[in-house]
Amino acid sequence: MMDISKQWTNFLEDATEEEQEMASLYLNSLKRKKSGENGTHIGALMAIESEFQEPGTLTMTIPNTEFLQNSLHILHGGLTATLLDSAMGTLAFRLLPEDKAAVTTEMKINYVAKGVGTHFTCIASVIHKGSKLLVMEGKVYRSDQTLIAHATGSFFVIPNKK
Amino acid sequence: MMDISKQWTNFLEDATEEEQEMASLYLNSLKRKKSGENGTHIGALMAIESEFQEPGTLTMTIPNTEFLQNSLHILHGGLTATLLDSAMGTLAFRLLPEDKAAVTTEMKINYVAKGVGTHFTCIASVIHKGSKLLVMEGKVYRSDQTLIAHATGSFFVIPNKK
Amino acid sequence: MMDISKQWTNFLEDATEEEQEMASLYLNSLKRKKSGENGTHIGALMAIESEFQEPGTLTMTIPNTEFLQNSLHILHGGLTATLLDSAMGTLAFRLLPEDKAAVTTEMKINYVAKGVGTHFTCIASVIHKGSKLLVMEGKVYRSDQTLIAHATGSFFVIPNKK
Amino acid sequence: MMDISKQWTNFLEDATEEEQEMASLYLNSLKRKKSGENGTHIGALMAIESEFQEPGTLTMTIPNTEFLQNSLHILHGGLTATLLDSAMGTLAFRLLPEDKAAVTTEMKINYVAKGVGTHFTCIASVIHKGSKLLVMEGKVYRSDQTLIAHATGSFFVIPNKK
Repeated sequence: MMDISKQWTNFLEDATEEEQEMASLYLNSLKRKKSGENGTHIGALMAIESEFQEPGTLTMTIPNTEFLQNSLHILHGGLTATLLDSAMGTLAFRLLPEDKAAVTTEMKINYVAKGVGTHFTCIASVIHKGSKLLVMEGKVYRSDQTLIAHATGSFFVIPNKK
Repeated sequence: MMDISKQWTNFLEDATEEEQEMASLYLNSLKRKKSGENGTHIGALMAIESEFQEPGTLTMTIPNTEFLQNSLHILHGGLTATLLDSAMGTLAFRLLPEDKAAVTTEMKINYVAKGVGTHFTCIASVIHKGSKLLVMEGKVYRSDQTLIAHATGSFFVIPNKK
Repeated sequence: MMDISKQWTNFLEDATEEEQEMASLYLNSLKRKKSGENGTHIGALMAIESEFQEPGTLTMTIPNTEFLQNSLHILHGGLTATLLDSAMGTLAFRLLPEDKAAVTTEMKINYVAKGVGTHFTCIASVIHKGSKLLVMEGKVYRSDQTLIAHATGSFFVIPNKK
Repeated sequence: MMDISKQWTNFLEDATEEEQEMASLYLNSLKRKKSGENGTHIGALMAIESEFQEPGTLTMTIPNTEFLQNSLHILHGGLTATLLDSAMGTLAFRLLPEDKAAVTTEMKINYVAKGVGTHFTCIASVIHKGSKLLVMEGKVYRSDQTLIAHATGSFFVIPNKK
């Protein structure tokens, strides 16, 4: 089988502009993952930047790219869900003591407007913090400040084995 | 700025095995998208294979890859959501006449077991088919047949502009 | 203050037919509660009859009465929810060992058709039975067999103090 | 068959204190419904008091009574759902022009604390107001201000035939 580097070179020889952009996005994603900027490939692909605010809010921002879009060039509902789950889960984890982690047990999303624009911002906050279950809220806004999705999710507290 | 092909070559020179696998997955994804096997980049990355069964069920199968996994090497809840939204949405679209399309207005997912194994299968079916709203159900199974996620979603019927 | 029996007598002197029917329904409800036929006032008012089927399904049936209806004479969405929560919760409790009970942590309902007809039937079943969390499904049908509502719910396992 | 008034008199002769209280609650409910204070029997039984605040919030308050409670003397999850559906639906209706009405298409509730205390307050607000679909949020607090339930719901806009 041909060397992967050679395969990329061959493919890119007659790639369209969009394919070149995607090739660049994929490479940057591998670099973000390698550097530890993002802990997962999907997080790196979405180029998630995350910021925690006291006393209990987390903001995640992602640039809009071709990767995020469905066939109508609108933010894919599944990737909206990925952003929401990541933001709510990261906040849940952040609010727990070091020996605890959290897993999503359920999530519900209402999609209320089209995901278009230059970037998307997700704000996660706490609805209820119990000892066994955390209930979180997440909102996704597009760059013109319009709310595009609203979510609630439950996160079950488990021991952190790491 | 350096040519993207050259950048890939440089990166792959001292890439880990996992990075080489991901490089291969990304390249295959671009080829799947180019050939029309998948209509979206995320669908191509997940290598979704889809099959419609009469009278109204749709099955989507994806291989388990590093790309799908969170930092605990378990299927990411957001990508589970992506699979569910894709399967339910594709089925909704398939069941509508040619001049209609469907958009997700809400989706709720219960995560019930860890997503591990060689592949995942999502089965979408119809709960209710109204003239304005379709309510769908989706179930995701891992390769050992254990149910890992259950979803319900609403799809609003809109004119198909294509 | 006037004796409650006297107050009822006065009220019923010029009550409408609907009011007399409701007075009768309320009295029957108190009798059902007294006899232990139903454990709660709301269950007695809805005249819930419940039946468990092996290996894990529960059916609840209620007659349609004026009490159940909203101002458009359609089954109230909240009482549909009450029926679903009761059926799923009763089934969860039934499936647990004697020293365990279950509390609803979340429930999502899709309302898909108007609740009209002579009676309603709710069928609860198990989506997932974990040691800490049970995920249940509930479906409500009207007397012509049309599905009117679909629900999923999570039930947290707790010690049974009774 | 014995006259309903006579039946009530007979029943109340050896009724317990709780039964007398319930008899009084049922009678008051019929009076609230007759006077138009509440439009539905369930609303009257819960003695819902409702207040709209500009620019788009609705508060519903109910006293805690035996009627609302499950067998553990905690607010029944189905009646919590009834309060939430009523508050969100009433607000949706209030925000629409006179020739439009709204029907609940879905609702999801997270139950986060026990419903106990002297009364319950539900606050409904708007997440998104579209031309065809309104997405609402509802929160239920007990008398000590603790949040006990959080809901989101979708309301489909229909012509108002009244």
